[in-house]
Amino acid sequence: MGDRQRFALGLSYQGTAYHGWQTQDNLPCVQTLLEEALSRVAAHPVSVICAGRTDAGVHASEQIIHFDTEAVRDEYAWLMGTNSYLPPDISVQWVKAVSANFHARLRATSRCYRYVIYNSPIRPGILHNAVTWHYRALNVAAMHEAAQHWVGEHDFSSFRSSVCQAKTPHRKIHAIEIHQQQSLIVIEVIGNAFLHHMVRNMVGVLFLIGQGFKKTRWALEVLEAKDRRVAGMMAPANGLYLTKISYPAEFGLPITPNGPFFLAGSLL
Amino acid sequence: MGDRQRFALGLSYQGTAYHGWQTQDNLPCVQTLLEEALSRVAAHPVSVICAGRTDAGVHASEQIIHFDTEAVRDEYAWLMGTNSYLPPDISVQWVKAVSANFHARLRATSRCYRYVIYNSPIRPGILHNAVTWHYRALNVAAMHEAAQHWVGEHDFSSFRSSVCQAKTPHRKIHAIEIHQQQSLIVIEVIGNAFLHHMVRNMVGVLFLIGQGFKKTRWALEVLEAKDRRVAGMMAPANGLYLTKISYPAEFGLPITPNGPFFLAGSLL
Repeated sequence: MGDRQRFALGLSYQGTAYHGWQTQDNLPCVQTLLEEALSRVAAHPVSVICAGRTDAGVHASEQIIHFDTEAVRDEYAWLMGTNSYLPPDISVQWVKAVSANFHARLRATSRCYRYVIYNSPIRPGILHNAVTWHYRALNVAAMHEAAQHWVGEHDFSSFRSSVCQAKTPHRKIHAIEIHQQQSLIVIEVIGNAFLHHMVRNMVGVLFLIGQGFKKTRWALEVLEAKDRRVAGMMAPANGLYLTKISYPAEFGLPITPNGPFFLAGSLL
Repeated sequence: MGDRQRFALGLSYQGTAYHGWQTQDNLPCVQTLLEEALSRVAAHPVSVICAGRTDAGVHASEQIIHFDTEAVRDEYAWLMGTNSYLPPDISVQWVKAVSANFHARLRATSRCYRYVIYNSPIRPGILHNAVTWHYRALNVAAMHEAAQHWVGEHDFSSFRSSVCQAKTPHRKIHAIEIHQQQSLIVIEVIGNAFLHHMVRNMVGVLFLIGQGFKKTRWALEVLEAKDRRVAGMMAPANGLYLTKISYPAEFGLPITPNGPFFLAGSLL
């Protein structure tokens, strides 16, 4: 055993088969499987802290975690060893030794999520767990215009789950961009941090605006109401991806490859 | 009950959960589920014939089938009713009444397949069932050049499964194109028809050429050997998609939407 060393790790996973990131008794969760795999490589129990917990069915093309260990292994051995103990829908993309002042959650400066809508009259047969299907034609320009009301620092109480444990409902959205590529609509949101269910509740509001049931200005009214009851239904988990977490350059973290998440156009 | 009417139907499915297209006793197969769904809508037993049978784990963004029925339902009722009885990984995209001289297999003039490789040192966590992962860097230009030896009408015995039931090993390849888009390599093959395992055996040969273990000319030598034993290993099912079947214009079949199969660049 050596000195205690902290490692950062970039992870990608398809959330379909899991009850979300966070370990729950007797349920398949990403955190549980990752900790078990790391513990086998370390030969001692390892616990991890992630940048952003994801809900059941939500995917991550980039999730960042950190862990501490006294086991002496190089970065490549952690990478290859851990992947050999993980199922095919969870994959470590890189491992990097970091200083003890790195923290996956507390040192993250921004997070990026993508929400992918398949907008077509008929439901998809392939990749149905990778997208959210919506059968009514959506007005992407109206959705994009509406979402700009949320850019900046605001009280996002209207988009907050009733079980959210955050101390404050204030968050800062750096940018929201909505693109269409044939039948796919991609909503990309970057912010300093997000409340529980915040992205999916935002998308729920955009669905109503995109269908023309609500005007673009309603996005502002929902924000200003600071009341979850005025927003629409939460959008399904299928189409949501955690795609990027940023840290100060001093930590020198690697870039996570996009994997087979092959949509064009990214804000980052 | 009305007169006997023939219908053509465009289907898409994710093959991961199925033991291929063709019904086998006590195994989950796409044909079985489609026939059960159509039979419920028809209220009598319906059997179907497809354009091209797919193996276990192989996907279809377009599969075409036909069936005959005396049940009086319009195209929209067949479409919506059948989809309501199918699981989320199988979806009817359109249904069209056709003349009795339409036949999904015998009247098809060409088929197109796509094989999608995720070429990256580390395996993917997301969409792992939608692509075939290969960790060694592949030379796409060499693969493309090699594949051009197969264009035209040839005896494809070297690429034929030992259990293939076709009467002749002669097939005509109209075009093969290989594109790279970031970490994804897409092999697109169009031909009049294909032998059992033909595309996956071709891709197996291209894997060896792409890695530099064999020269591009080896593709011609394998073809000319007319012997399955000289070809490489068969490529895995994960990355293979049946994407397009063409028929004479007289039948007026609709275009199947690409679904969330959102790769750029298609020959058709």
